Amino acid sequence: MIPFELTILGTGSALPTSKRYHTAHVLKVRERFFLIDCGEGAQIQMRKYGVKISRINHIFISHLHGDHYFGLIGLLTSYTLLGRTNDLHIHAHSDLPNILESQLKYMGDDVPYKIIWHPLNFKKTQTILEDDVIKVTSFPLNHRMACCGFKFEEQPLELNIVKEKIEEYNIPVRSIYRIKKGEDFIKPDGSIVQNKELTFRQFRQRKYAFCTDTAYIPDLHKQIEGVDLLYHEATFDKSMEDKAEATYHSTARQAGLVAHASHVKKLLIGHFSSRYKNVDSLVNEARAEFKNTEAANEGMIVKIPQEREQIE
Amino acid sequence: MIPFELTILGTGSALPTSKRYHTAHVLKVRERFFLIDCGEGAQIQMRKYGVKISRINHIFISHLHGDHYFGLIGLLTSYTLLGRTNDLHIHAHSDLPNILESQLKYMGDDVPYKIIWHPLNFKKTQTILEDDVIKVTSFPLNHRMACCGFKFEEQPLELNIVKEKIEEYNIPVRSIYRIKKGEDFIKPDGSIVQNKELTFRQFRQRKYAFCTDTAYIPDLHKQIEGVDLLYHEATFDKSMEDKAEATYHSTARQAGLVAHASHVKKLLIGHFSSRYKNVDSLVNEARAEFKNTEAANEGMIVKIPQEREQIE
Repeated sequence: MIPFELTILGTGSALPTSKRYHTAHVLKVRERFFLIDCGEGAQIQMRKYGVKISRINHIFISHLHGDHYFGLIGLLTSYTLLGRTNDLHIHAHSDLPNILESQLKYMGDDVPYKIIWHPLNFKKTQTILEDDVIKVTSFPLNHRMACCGFKFEEQPLELNIVKEKIEEYNIPVRSIYRIKKGEDFIKPDGSIVQNKELTFRQFRQRKYAFCTDTAYIPDLHKQIEGVDLLYHEATFDKSMEDKAEATYHSTARQAGLVAHASHVKKLLIGHFSSRYKNVDSLVNEARAEFKNTEAANEGMIVKIPQEREQIE
Repeated sequence: MIPFELTILGTGSALPTSKRYHTAHVLKVRERFFLIDCGEGAQIQMRKYGVKISRINHIFISHLHGDHYFGLIGLLTSYTLLGRTNDLHIHAHSDLPNILESQLKYMGDDVPYKIIWHPLNFKKTQTILEDDVIKVTSFPLNHRMACCGFKFEEQPLELNIVKEKIEEYNIPVRSIYRIKKGEDFIKPDGSIVQNKELTFRQFRQRKYAFCTDTAYIPDLHKQIEGVDLLYHEATFDKSMEDKAEATYHSTARQAGLVAHASHVKKLLIGHFSSRYKNVDSLVNEARAEFKNTEAANEGMIVKIPQEREQIE
């Protein structure tokens, strides 16, 4: 099975606890790793949970509160020590290179790889990365400072041909390539065999959405409709809705409402305030709105299975 | 017993591993905590190992390689979130405030406490802090960049009076205070009772020395003679002495030589290169030079017991 899996590195909010680290997620798609936020200690968490840091070429930073990026400078330094040469793409607020500049300078002139900064647009939805493996979209959240959510969509794989059909129609090798891309087969007599007769159903494109930090956005479903997995912050419980609103955070109930309205398959809640030693009540609160909810935990791996599309 | 104890938060060198964090130590003396270096994740380690971060008023940063200070900005941010109001004294290279300035600015104007920066002198030995609890001395090490070691010496406690002597000589309350400070007692008839007849032997002043990062300094014993506990880096094993020299680090054997020449009571080695999955061979190598050697480990607490001075 071709992997599409999320590893949770940190689930705490601004104040870490002895168990909850600052926000950082790694999404593995095929053989590539995408790092989403990079709180303090993320590089250590990655080593603990078997993420190959050398395979990360793209980093996405939602916003510039320290609990979402203070681990970045350490990771960049480790890349230097490891002799990284691959370009590293960082999608973040345009201020971040300036903020890190003095520390980057202190690393010396011998940084053996290139950092390519991609400033995020916090006002509108944008495709910020698209290649043969993934499409990444950023969209505005509603926080005290400019903050983006991210949606990761797997790109379609080549179609799998039904082997018996190759023999049946005597399909030449040069046509197989085209059929895998979705074309029909034209027989020597000019008649057409439809692609769907020759191939298995396409795998569904798997989707992950990352939404933290944010106040409750009632129409967030417009951005994340139907994703397989939604990570939505749930800093507070519903009794603290006023506090959530004042600090531009969400309650667990609100995370559940968003998941429900968005028809997602599964909801992970996180970014828990350090006041909650146990988050069961937050999970129950979200489940009242959206049943398939779990609390994110450090080291948790969520694998989205490959499934063929339903035949209509 | 009045505590003088060291908690080890990180023992790795520049590249962390899944088990070894970057350098950070906390020395607890009486009810105060002194933080020595602050590698990435130090604040999380402190929570894990029960260090009360609110009781830290003094931080000492040996040098400006990232593995010794990248955890500082996160700790400073947490202090803001916790509403700290006590002054915080940071002893470090004079460049550090500039390096952190842009991140400190981003924290906003609402930092509720004052940071008092104390620039270190990397050329000569200096007393950098002295109060009724502790005396801290910095001294030059030999690293690729300016780097200091630190020696922490407990200040003498008040003497304990032998209760029976108060009755025997009918000592008034106003004299007790003076006797505790070390003065003799003058009887109404003008004759003198010597202080040592009235008091228990003084407790020995306990001492801790922190020496990382550094190449081997054969005369380092001049700085750290007779300390109870020495932490000395042992990045490499003796087969890599050339590499140690080239990178201004020490071997385990060299750490042992320093401990031996300095007549310390106990040696802790650390700052291990990530190439060593197991550091037993490094410990054995140091023990060949200085028997009472142990490897530092995350979460290790070394308590130096109170002992009365020997009667001469």
